[in-house]
Amino acid sequence: MSIFDFQLEKNRANFEPLSPVSFLKRAAQVVPDHVAIIHGKRRYTYKSFLDRSCRLANALSGRNIVAGDCVAIMGANTPEMLEAHNAVPMIGAVLNSLNIRLDPQTIAFILEHGEAKVLLTDCAFSPVVKDALALIDREILVIDIDDSESEGGERLGEMTYEEFIESVSGEFSSEQPTDEWQALSLLYTSGTTGNPKGCVYHHRGAYLNAIGNMTTMGLNRHSVYLWTLPMFHCDGWTFTWAVTASMGTHVCLRAVEPKAVFDSISENSVTHMCGAPIVMNLLANAPKEMKTPFSQTVEIATGGAAPPSAVIEAMEADGFHVTHLYGLTETYGPATVCIPQDDWQTLPLQQRSARMSRQGVHYGTLENASVKHSNTMVDVPWDGETFGEVMVRGNTVMKGYLKNTEATDDAFSGGWFHSGDIAVRHADGYIEIKDRSKDIIISGGENISSLEIEEVLFRHPKVLEAAVVSKSDEKWGESPCAFITLREGEAASAEEIMVFCRDNMAHYKMPRTVVFCDLPKTSTGKIQKFVLRDQAENL
Amino acid sequence: MSIFDFQLEKNRANFEPLSPVSFLKRAAQVVPDHVAIIHGKRRYTYKSFLDRSCRLANALSGRNIVAGDCVAIMGANTPEMLEAHNAVPMIGAVLNSLNIRLDPQTIAFILEHGEAKVLLTDCAFSPVVKDALALIDREILVIDIDDSESEGGERLGEMTYEEFIESVSGEFSSEQPTDEWQALSLLYTSGTTGNPKGCVYHHRGAYLNAIGNMTTMGLNRHSVYLWTLPMFHCDGWTFTWAVTASMGTHVCLRAVEPKAVFDSISENSVTHMCGAPIVMNLLANAPKEMKTPFSQTVEIATGGAAPPSAVIEAMEADGFHVTHLYGLTETYGPATVCIPQDDWQTLPLQQRSARMSRQGVHYGTLENASVKHSNTMVDVPWDGETFGEVMVRGNTVMKGYLKNTEATDDAFSGGWFHSGDIAVRHADGYIEIKDRSKDIIISGGENISSLEIEEVLFRHPKVLEAAVVSKSDEKWGESPCAFITLREGEAASAEEIMVFCRDNMAHYKMPRTVVFCDLPKTSTGKIQKFVLRDQAENL
Repeated sequence: MSIFDFQLEKNRANFEPLSPVSFLKRAAQVVPDHVAIIHGKRRYTYKSFLDRSCRLANALSGRNIVAGDCVAIMGANTPEMLEAHNAVPMIGAVLNSLNIRLDPQTIAFILEHGEAKVLLTDCAFSPVVKDALALIDREILVIDIDDSESEGGERLGEMTYEEFIESVSGEFSSEQPTDEWQALSLLYTSGTTGNPKGCVYHHRGAYLNAIGNMTTMGLNRHSVYLWTLPMFHCDGWTFTWAVTASMGTHVCLRAVEPKAVFDSISENSVTHMCGAPIVMNLLANAPKEMKTPFSQTVEIATGGAAPPSAVIEAMEADGFHVTHLYGLTETYGPATVCIPQDDWQTLPLQQRSARMSRQGVHYGTLENASVKHSNTMVDVPWDGETFGEVMVRGNTVMKGYLKNTEATDDAFSGGWFHSGDIAVRHADGYIEIKDRSKDIIISGGENISSLEIEEVLFRHPKVLEAAVVSKSDEKWGESPCAFITLREGEAASAEEIMVFCRDNMAHYKMPRTVVFCDLPKTSTGKIQKFVLRDQAENL
Repeated sequence: MSIFDFQLEKNRANFEPLSPVSFLKRAAQVVPDHVAIIHGKRRYTYKSFLDRSCRLANALSGRNIVAGDCVAIMGANTPEMLEAHNAVPMIGAVLNSLNIRLDPQTIAFILEHGEAKVLLTDCAFSPVVKDALALIDREILVIDIDDSESEGGERLGEMTYEEFIESVSGEFSSEQPTDEWQALSLLYTSGTTGNPKGCVYHHRGAYLNAIGNMTTMGLNRHSVYLWTLPMFHCDGWTFTWAVTASMGTHVCLRAVEPKAVFDSISENSVTHMCGAPIVMNLLANAPKEMKTPFSQTVEIATGGAAPPSAVIEAMEADGFHVTHLYGLTETYGPATVCIPQDDWQTLPLQQRSARMSRQGVHYGTLENASVKHSNTMVDVPWDGETFGEVMVRGNTVMKGYLKNTEATDDAFSGGWFHSGDIAVRHADGYIEIKDRSKDIIISGGENISSLEIEEVLFRHPKVLEAAVVSKSDEKWGESPCAFITLREGEAASAEEIMVFCRDNMAHYKMPRTVVFCDLPKTSTGKIQKFVLRDQAENL
């Protein structure tokens, strides 16, 4: 033992488990009267945000919810969701945010699998939740969130959220977590096949990822964050806590409609927001009359898939500054960021956009991100060409999948989390995703990235959305098949699209089939390629 | 056991000990060609900063320095200091930065007590170091830092720093720390009496405090940080790592001379700096012709003592934005920050300055700061009047004092670190230090804060510096005695000063004795009140 280890142990003065709940306590002390949450006409200061969160914690404790218990919430982006993100961890319980677009069967599966003891549910989702509750056996305390900003709906529970938190004290003194590795929340992957898997987050990881968001996006106490990203999605990529850590303002929004977004940006002087590329697409393509002007630059972080250059270009013209993040439910949302290098500024916009659509480098709060051979775990060369699997390691990777040791072990094999995304590494170390492993098209022995073809298709002026999948091909093994949604009022032929592709990519990558249709999407807005693959095979 | 703890253990994919060394590795990957360090004509990119740090790590390993060994450094603010702050922790060793203003006896004491195996020493300090080395028995590897930006001096060691790192590889793959609680550095308090105590820092605390600095001061990769704070002082308040975490630029400076500071701010487009109030005083009072103009606003963090309003005022007029931090060697430097509330902006400058000179609220990365009764541990009321002791707890508090269990236990008694500083808590929760416990003057049963009198004295136009101590008084028990340095060319009488005080404070607080002289200072620039107390008694 070194002299530096002798009688220098941890104690209550010099060690405290990291927890994102600490952010709210500090904000309520430092800026008690600062507006923490705006939701329509509702306004909560940090003092009342903490008071309401403490009341919810006390109300749950009063119903015998203790550390290690699961509390589910079916909520839109409302103050109650933010309160639950603090109150539930305060008592050491685990918050299970449900995807509001799921079907009753899947919700029932999740409530059973996660062993929820309480369900806080927004009345707007009562039809689906009622059906889900009818399918489950376990006893569950149901509390209705009856949001004044929504049209409401049937009440399913014992009482409303306001009644639940009204009857208890706002005084709360927490000793949770006792260990920063303690579970904080439970989030199910949307999974395109089979039952969803439950990712378990811990306090340490959420604390660190929230700080990673703060430093990456430059949040501070003057920031105003608009909730265009669902809070149920990876706990809002941990921005639920990051905005509070910065002591900025949360602006809630129940539904992402272009006019409501632009109006809010202007009225509330929004500085930051996040959203999948589909959100940017929606905003960029909104009619001009919906685009209420604003004078500030809005920092928008996007992720989930690479934003097409055309969309980045359109967003910048409208006053947004786009940052491309990448991550998965398993990594608390953002795990990498495409930090723009200084010399990109001088590149022509299209080249710059192409760089910006890369996934980039690991977050400051993650240990590392790499592209490796899936089995040998050897790093691919930084040549921009060799395919490998994106893998990450560090403190912002989940504890594992709930009650699924096999999937957990698989995901962590070799000491790295295996993302399932196929990528190359450029000479500057930047990661660029080429596809999900199952979306790679192998044609005549060549790997073809469906994303690369989609990127070209998006540049076609008539194309609104595009998705490319593999289709069995007698000669080539597989060939690319493109599904396209045209912009309103536009018409195009398959030939026209193929010629455009041939002019803009290696010939062997050109789609051999082009289909015009609406694209099927998952509940989180991701295109369901497995549906398209089925369609492609049956053409 | 809850289902959330079952088979969801830590593994290499999802857990990594926090360490500030990770910041340099990331910066060298993400922005390899960005200028990391500027020192006179020397420039190092992040790639070369990492390369040189790895070489130093390898060179130390080559001399059998292993985890838990102590490496001392007697260095000015030069690149070698920054490299040592990464290289030494990389191999799990403990960096002991020596205060360059210490006498040979104290340095010898520290080298013995800390059990240093290596001493990296800047040739400019050879006379003192040579004498110190003559006083010690242990075998020690001495390496000379022969800085091209200094006038140099005698070489004491086996070889120069450049020779030491030249012969080894820049390839280094670190597995340190294996535990984030592992010791990182050792810093001796300047202690005005008795032998200095050695504060032991750990990797977790330095990582978190560096992030606290980043978010508090708004550091990012465009930041340029001027080293006006000594790096040996609490590892530069952990800015040694914070600037690297932000991927900004370190600008080294061997000596704080007003002209050099203003020139550097202008030439290097400096955005951030830190310094004790004495540094601000020096800059504010510099002759106009030395103040090279600059167009940016420079964020300057100050701490160690409350900055007098007059100094804040003068600094703002010169283009600085002052943030007041407070902390101790035991807390990795900054532990609290005086966050300006929005409504302070409308206050008259003097009232605003008075608010700004408060110590404020706990850092985001500290768990809590409070003012408590020293023995009962009861919080003082938030009334701005009741005296208590500043206490802090959280992850950015040292492991303890090296080989001094009694002092460690005392410091941490009751689960809080006892600062020894006497303060009140205002209605908004902001802490305001009234004095070191030993500096409080008890006159006629009333507590008088020496700082409060000094604050008034500083507002007198002829006063450059002032310090107030207690003097035995037959009638009152104790009475305030003021020591004053007048501005160059000014003359004043004791009566004039006393009248000014009487007009600006409660009469019983007025100094009964006024002495004009130069003020004795410690090696870190703090006024030596114990010397003044002796003088006061012997007047």
